[in-house]
Amino acid sequence: MAVYTNLSAADLADLIDAYDVGTLVSAKGIAEGVSNSNWLVETTQDRFILTMYEARVAVADLPFFLDLLDHLAGKGSPVPRTIHDRDGASFRMVRGKAVALIEFLPGVSVDEPSPAQARAVGTALAGLHRNGGDFRGQRANAMALPAWRDLFERCGTAGLASIDAALPALVARELEDLAHDWPADLPRTAIHADLFPDNVLLLGDRVSGLIDFYFACTDQAAYDLAVTHAAWCFGRGGAFRPDIAAALMEGYCAARPLSEAERAALPVLARGAALRFIATRAYDWLHTPADALVTRKDPLDFARRLVFYREAGHSAFAAIA
Amino acid sequence: MAVYTNLSAADLADLIDAYDVGTLVSAKGIAEGVSNSNWLVETTQDRFILTMYEARVAVADLPFFLDLLDHLAGKGSPVPRTIHDRDGASFRMVRGKAVALIEFLPGVSVDEPSPAQARAVGTALAGLHRNGGDFRGQRANAMALPAWRDLFERCGTAGLASIDAALPALVARELEDLAHDWPADLPRTAIHADLFPDNVLLLGDRVSGLIDFYFACTDQAAYDLAVTHAAWCFGRGGAFRPDIAAALMEGYCAARPLSEAERAALPVLARGAALRFIATRAYDWLHTPADALVTRKDPLDFARRLVFYREAGHSAFAAIA
Repeated sequence: MAVYTNLSAADLADLIDAYDVGTLVSAKGIAEGVSNSNWLVETTQDRFILTMYEARVAVADLPFFLDLLDHLAGKGSPVPRTIHDRDGASFRMVRGKAVALIEFLPGVSVDEPSPAQARAVGTALAGLHRNGGDFRGQRANAMALPAWRDLFERCGTAGLASIDAALPALVARELEDLAHDWPADLPRTAIHADLFPDNVLLLGDRVSGLIDFYFACTDQAAYDLAVTHAAWCFGRGGAFRPDIAAALMEGYCAARPLSEAERAALPVLARGAALRFIATRAYDWLHTPADALVTRKDPLDFARRLVFYREAGHSAFAAIA
Repeated sequence: MAVYTNLSAADLADLIDAYDVGTLVSAKGIAEGVSNSNWLVETTQDRFILTMYEARVAVADLPFFLDLLDHLAGKGSPVPRTIHDRDGASFRMVRGKAVALIEFLPGVSVDEPSPAQARAVGTALAGLHRNGGDFRGQRANAMALPAWRDLFERCGTAGLASIDAALPALVARELEDLAHDWPADLPRTAIHADLFPDNVLLLGDRVSGLIDFYFACTDQAAYDLAVTHAAWCFGRGGAFRPDIAAALMEGYCAARPLSEAERAALPVLARGAALRFIATRAYDWLHTPADALVTRKDPLDFARRLVFYREAGHSAFAAIA
């Protein structure tokens, strides 16, 4: 979370002039987004988020991400629209980096959601999956099982063991099981693939924004639900929150009922979701200096969730009686 | 520049409820302020800067800083007002740290000011000095010569020499000369003491905000002008900008003419201003790991300015013919 690149007031004013949005009134670098620089920009007309894409986001992927926002917003999903410049472009290059101007949405991210909030998030996610079905852009999920395996190989067995002695065996077993059990034929759509609480803006119990679509891709909808389940349904101490899980599932299924096959696959998909975050967090853990100012996220949080999903099976996705 | 402390949405909503400013709509951590955490907060009524004071700001000093903002704003200086809570308090404690809610002002900070902008900054600074004269709060300048000497002692001769071989001799000579030559009887008022371009918001050529008063104190007005001169009148490559300097002086003197004694003291005061920033930057340079994500500011920038002020004398403050 940082502003990686300094843009001068003159750079910013020039950039804003390329859009039909009024003139620059204020710009504050905001501590949001893991790998991009972001500014909250105010003009004489409105407020916007200005995002500068740093190394982790490929410029070739931007049309997918930015057009998807427009597609979803056009169909009523609470996602920010991309502002196009006077030439109609969805992004521009500034000092060698791509930048996009994106609608500002109100709302705050919650740490500890209520069931009502989880229900609203489920409904918003289902709406995203319904609305994304006819989006013409396609992007393979670059964070699917082969990528997890690659990240774990780059961590090395010794590296994983340095995080926790039991981690190498857990990872090896799951990689093997999931390669065998992973479903292939569930309904596919545009998915968010990273819908943590950080990426949801709420006004009370209403979802005012789904943001940060930079892992979005074309993949099985039920996997996105499993990611969201793994990201939302555990309390601060790590304990499973059945009330949150039930509300999330209820909100989702009310707007997009799951097929039998999707429902059957959820425990496996949730183990995959947990393994996906273990992979990136373990890699970052081993490749970030311990004294760096970036907060490393503990890979073991998701190792515990993975073990939970193995043990709980379908009960993790059950309604509360 | 960072957000050091995480405040949850619930913390933020509770905090905002303590003020008569509407309900929380949005809060973004902003990358501003060297030693505080800051959020740009929007409520149903208005926007605000929420500042949480981290270790460097003493809570005992907050009444001086926050009341000074109200005093100056009340007299028409472009500084943000402090919002008082429902009990009239200018700051509150949250999770053991003091927080204040401060008026949001538009404008952007410039890297390379124009003469018209420098003139406006000079006028705004003079206004601050005029308006601060009858402020009843008093705070000694904690960053005066004894503090510089102390910081240099904690750097050590070897430490300073590791930055530049010539630095120990330059510092020793200046400390001695300035202790002897420092004026004591110039007009005193509330001063900003750190008016770098970062701390000035501009809308075109108009000063819309003077911000970040956390070095403010009671001291000689002409010293504050010298600090501002040293902070503004050198271009990106380090070269003195006589056009900017002349405009700054012109803007200042039009609103608050300098006495003969003040004018005579400016070269010495500017050397002191330069030495003050060498002191803090050298200390931070030697005490910040080279691979930390915090940008260390090069102490030699101000060593060069100090040498410039020694050589230029009064000509640095002259009008352009």
